[in-house]
Amino acid sequence: MDSSNASLVGAGAEPASSRIQQIMSVAGQIFAKKGYDGTSMREIAEACDISKALLYHHFKSKEEIYSRVVVDSGKRLYDYVDAQVAAQTSPTEKLRAFMVSSANYFEENRWGWIAAASAFWNETDSETRDERIARRDRYEHQLRDILQEAVDKGEIRPEVDVAMAGRLVLSSINWMYRWYKPEKQMKAGEIAEAYFEMIFEGLRLRD
Amino acid sequence: MDSSNASLVGAGAEPASSRIQQIMSVAGQIFAKKGYDGTSMREIAEACDISKALLYHHFKSKEEIYSRVVVDSGKRLYDYVDAQVAAQTSPTEKLRAFMVSSANYFEENRWGWIAAASAFWNETDSETRDERIARRDRYEHQLRDILQEAVDKGEIRPEVDVAMAGRLVLSSINWMYRWYKPEKQMKAGEIAEAYFEMIFEGLRLRD
Repeated sequence: MDSSNASLVGAGAEPASSRIQQIMSVAGQIFAKKGYDGTSMREIAEACDISKALLYHHFKSKEEIYSRVVVDSGKRLYDYVDAQVAAQTSPTEKLRAFMVSSANYFEENRWGWIAAASAFWNETDSETRDERIARRDRYEHQLRDILQEAVDKGEIRPEVDVAMAGRLVLSSINWMYRWYKPEKQMKAGEIAEAYFEMIFEGLRLRD
Repeated sequence: MDSSNASLVGAGAEPASSRIQQIMSVAGQIFAKKGYDGTSMREIAEACDISKALLYHHFKSKEEIYSRVVVDSGKRLYDYVDAQVAAQTSPTEKLRAFMVSSANYFEENRWGWIAAASAFWNETDSETRDERIARRDRYEHQLRDILQEAVDKGEIRPEVDVAMAGRLVLSSINWMYRWYKPEKQMKAGEIAEAYFEMIFEGLRLRD
């Protein structure tokens, strides 16, 4: 059974790239629920309805899948957000772009994001963890720089604590992994737009 | 060794209540990291540096500890927040009280809170889960009622989406479990005050 399944790939029954996408998506869901240690190659193969041999044909180890799903997904987030922010001129528009592009990215890579978010408590490979935390720090600093620029240019009130404002913005985006359902009416990017509007303008009715 | 440790309690070497507090706090940390299924009574006993017999002297099962740490802690949150909100008259002050009291409660019950938050992905007992979700719904509805009242009384802009504003407020509080360190300068309640001020007044500098 293993060999016949493996030969499917050779026969080109399905493009490898869509198979790889499927494996990464399914593995992301399992990593998200069970963590790295709690997930086995066998479980991933079964959930994909493929043989272990075929799984190993595409990925040489569980670590490689995890790395592709969680680590690479994190790297691409920062490149993507960077590009969206760089396309804006005013710091307020940069803030909006930061929030909306982060949310869009989350929507496109939901299970990788959730796996990365859940990894927080159970990640064991300290090198992966250090790398991920260093990237996370850069991302958070980018946000603070945008907020500070907005204060410096008179777009944000000078009494606003930039570090706290950054926490608030990130909380709104980060918490989405816990409640957002793509099948519901709003897209993640629209939710981020609404958050941006509320945080920037405030809830208060002014006379 | 089991029996000599167990007899310590009988001899009153340490008040049971502080021992129970210790067990609940330690167990909360382990549940937070490993989930209910991944945690054993043996592990809790070892982490408390007590015998399993002594642990069973205080709690008849892992389920009982989990229930005390996670479920009871959730129940007390809602009672506590309810009381703080009820002491306010204006909806804006109710919103502030909701946020600050939730954060204060989180600070006092941090590991139980984290265990409950982490349980989201791995809780197996569906009865506990249903009960917890029903309470969570009441809590979220209470917040929306406060926000709707604030709109109705002209304290919050009528174009604000009350459901989205509720999500934003809860995101700010809920995400704290992932980054808040009690040893740092600000208390959780002060952070919630700062969030309230930013969300209510907005970041924007007005002429």
